Amino acid sequence: MSLKRIAYSSGEPAGIGPDIALYLMQEMAAKQWPCELVVLGNKQLLQDRAEQLGLVVSCVDYDAERPPQLWPSGTLVVAEHELGAPVQAGQLDSANSAYVLSLLRHAGEGCMQGEFDAIMTGPVHKGVINDAGIAFSGHTEFFAELSHTKQVVMMLATEGLRVALVTTHLPLSQVPAAITQPLVESVTKIVATELRQRFQCSSPKLLMCGLNPHAGEQGHLGREEIEHIEPALAALQSQGIEVSGPWPADTVFQPHYLANADAVIAMYHDQGLPVLKYRGFGNAVNITLGLPFVRTSVDHGTALDKAGTGAIDIGSACYALETALTMVTE
Amino acid sequence: MSLKRIAYSSGEPAGIGPDIALYLMQEMAAKQWPCELVVLGNKQLLQDRAEQLGLVVSCVDYDAERPPQLWPSGTLVVAEHELGAPVQAGQLDSANSAYVLSLLRHAGEGCMQGEFDAIMTGPVHKGVINDAGIAFSGHTEFFAELSHTKQVVMMLATEGLRVALVTTHLPLSQVPAAITQPLVESVTKIVATELRQRFQCSSPKLLMCGLNPHAGEQGHLGREEIEHIEPALAALQSQGIEVSGPWPADTVFQPHYLANADAVIAMYHDQGLPVLKYRGFGNAVNITLGLPFVRTSVDHGTALDKAGTGAIDIGSACYALETALTMVTE
Repeated sequence: MSLKRIAYSSGEPAGIGPDIALYLMQEMAAKQWPCELVVLGNKQLLQDRAEQLGLVVSCVDYDAERPPQLWPSGTLVVAEHELGAPVQAGQLDSANSAYVLSLLRHAGEGCMQGEFDAIMTGPVHKGVINDAGIAFSGHTEFFAELSHTKQVVMMLATEGLRVALVTTHLPLSQVPAAITQPLVESVTKIVATELRQRFQCSSPKLLMCGLNPHAGEQGHLGREEIEHIEPALAALQSQGIEVSGPWPADTVFQPHYLANADAVIAMYHDQGLPVLKYRGFGNAVNITLGLPFVRTSVDHGTALDKAGTGAIDIGSACYALETALTMVTE
Repeated sequence: MSLKRIAYSSGEPAGIGPDIALYLMQEMAAKQWPCELVVLGNKQLLQDRAEQLGLVVSCVDYDAERPPQLWPSGTLVVAEHELGAPVQAGQLDSANSAYVLSLLRHAGEGCMQGEFDAIMTGPVHKGVINDAGIAFSGHTEFFAELSHTKQVVMMLATEGLRVALVTTHLPLSQVPAAITQPLVESVTKIVATELRQRFQCSSPKLLMCGLNPHAGEQGHLGREEIEHIEPALAALQSQGIEVSGPWPADTVFQPHYLANADAVIAMYHDQGLPVLKYRGFGNAVNITLGLPFVRTSVDHGTALDKAGTGAIDIGSACYALETALTMVTE
C-alpha cells in the first residue's frame, strides 16, 4: 500500500482543531497510519498551543514536491497559512476567518490537483466566519461549490453503523415537502456508488426509513411514503440497487436489521443522527459523499472552552483519519 | 410490601399475547414478582396455545372477591372472556374484535374500581378492530376515554433511559404546528408529576429536545424553539420544574447528559424512540402517564407469524410487568 498524503485543515484557531493536530501527531507512531498527515495551519499557533498543552513539537515545512513520508514521533508537517490576528485559545476573532477559509481552499484545491489524497477537516465556527462578512454555511457546501459539485450527501459513520441523510440542515417544517422521489433516488444512488467505490461493499445493502412515524402506517399517518418514497424504492430496485423500506425509524436500527445492511438512509437529521451518535459517541465520523475527492470530518464542534486545556478526546479525529485512509485505499 | 394484583390484557388472540401469558407464568416463581397476575383472556384459547407450545398449564378462575395470592408454578389465573370465533394462531378474525375490547374494558374498569392495582397490556391489532366496524386508535386513547382523562402522555422506558413524547402518532408534516407552549408545558408537568409520584424521583430532572436540527441554531434552522419551546421552558422553570433545553436531539442522548437526567422530553415520535429502542431492544416498556391508574405495555406488536411457535422473547413483557409493579409500590 503506497503512503498517502492526507490534508488536515485545522479549522478555527481558537478551538480545539490545533490541539487535535498535536495529539494526532503523538498517535502517529503508535497507530502506524500509512500516511503523511499535512496540517494546514500556522506554525506559531501550533507551537504556542503545544506549549500551553505541555507538548513538544518540531514543525517541518510542508513541501508539495517532496514525496509523502513517515516522520519521526513529535514532528508535525505544516502547510503554513498566515493568521489575521494573534490567537487566544477560546477567544473567537473574526480577523481570522479569512485564514480559516484559506485552509479549506488549500485542502480542496490540493485534492483536486492530486497533491493530497484526502481531506480531513477540523471544526470551524460558522458564526464567526459570517461575522467577518463571509457567507459560509458549512464545509460540505464550501467543498461542493469549490468543486462545482451539484449534489453531495452527508453520511455519518461509526463502527457497525452508517447513516446517510436525504435532507440535512432544514427546519423540520420544511422537511416533508423536500422529500421527493428524485431526491430520494439521487441520494440513494450516491450512497450506493460510494459504498462500492470507497468502502469495499461490492453489493451495498441499504435500509430506507419512512418519513412518518411507523413509516406512515399505509397512509394513516402521512402519505409521503406512498407518494414519494415507495416509488423511489421501486425505481431504485429496478436499477439493481439493493434497498428495502420504507422502514419505521424506531424499528430499523435494531441489531438484526443492521446486521445485514451497509447503510441506513434517513429522511432527516434528527431521525438518523441521535442513534448514530448514541452508538458512536466520541468515535463517529462525518463523510461528504459525491465530491470528486474524499472528505471526512470530526463529529463535533470547536469546543472553545476546551482549547488549550488538554481535556479533549481525539477518538473522532482518529476515526475520521482512519476512515479517510480506508476510503482512498485502492 | 402487600401483594399486588396486576391485570394482563392478553390482547389479539391470534398474536403472541396469549403466548406471553404462558411464558410469564413460567417465570413467576423464578422472578418472585410480588403479585398475582390475572390474565384477561380465554381459558380454551390459553390451553390450546399451551398445547401448541408444549407447555402444561392449569387454569384457575379469577375471583375478584378472593384476596390476591401467589400461585404454584404452572398455574394461570384467568378472568374468562368469551371469544367471538375459534382462534387460529396467526390468523386475524374480526369476529374476535369485540372480545379484545372486552378485555381492555375489564382492565380499565377494574383498575378504576380498585379491583386491579395496574394494567399491563399485551399487543392488539388496530386494523382488525377497525375492520369490525369499531373505531379504535390505540390502547392509550381507549383508556383515556374510558377514564375521562383529557390529556395523557406516552413515555417509553428502558434501563437507564426514559423518553416522553410531546406529540405521538402524527404525520411529520403536522408536528411543527402541534408544538405549542401550552402543550409543551402540560406534557412536561405530567411527566414531572408522575416521576415524583410513581418513580421515586423526588426532584425529577428533565432534558427537553428542540424541534429542529441543532435545536434551531438560534433561529437559523427554524423558530419553534424561540417562539414556543423556550417560553415553555421558562414558565416550567419558574414553577420549580428542573428542566433544561432546548437540546439538539443528536447531543442530548449522550451518556454524560443522560447520567444526570430522569427523562428526555422529545418533540415527536422518531426524534426520541429510535434511540430508546436501540438502547432497550427487547427490554423496553411503553407507559401511559396521566391516567388515574397505572398502565404499562409491551413495546412490540402482535407478531402474528410467531404466535404458537415459541420463538418469542418476553423481555419486554417482563420489563412491563416489573415497571407496573414499581409504579404501584408505595
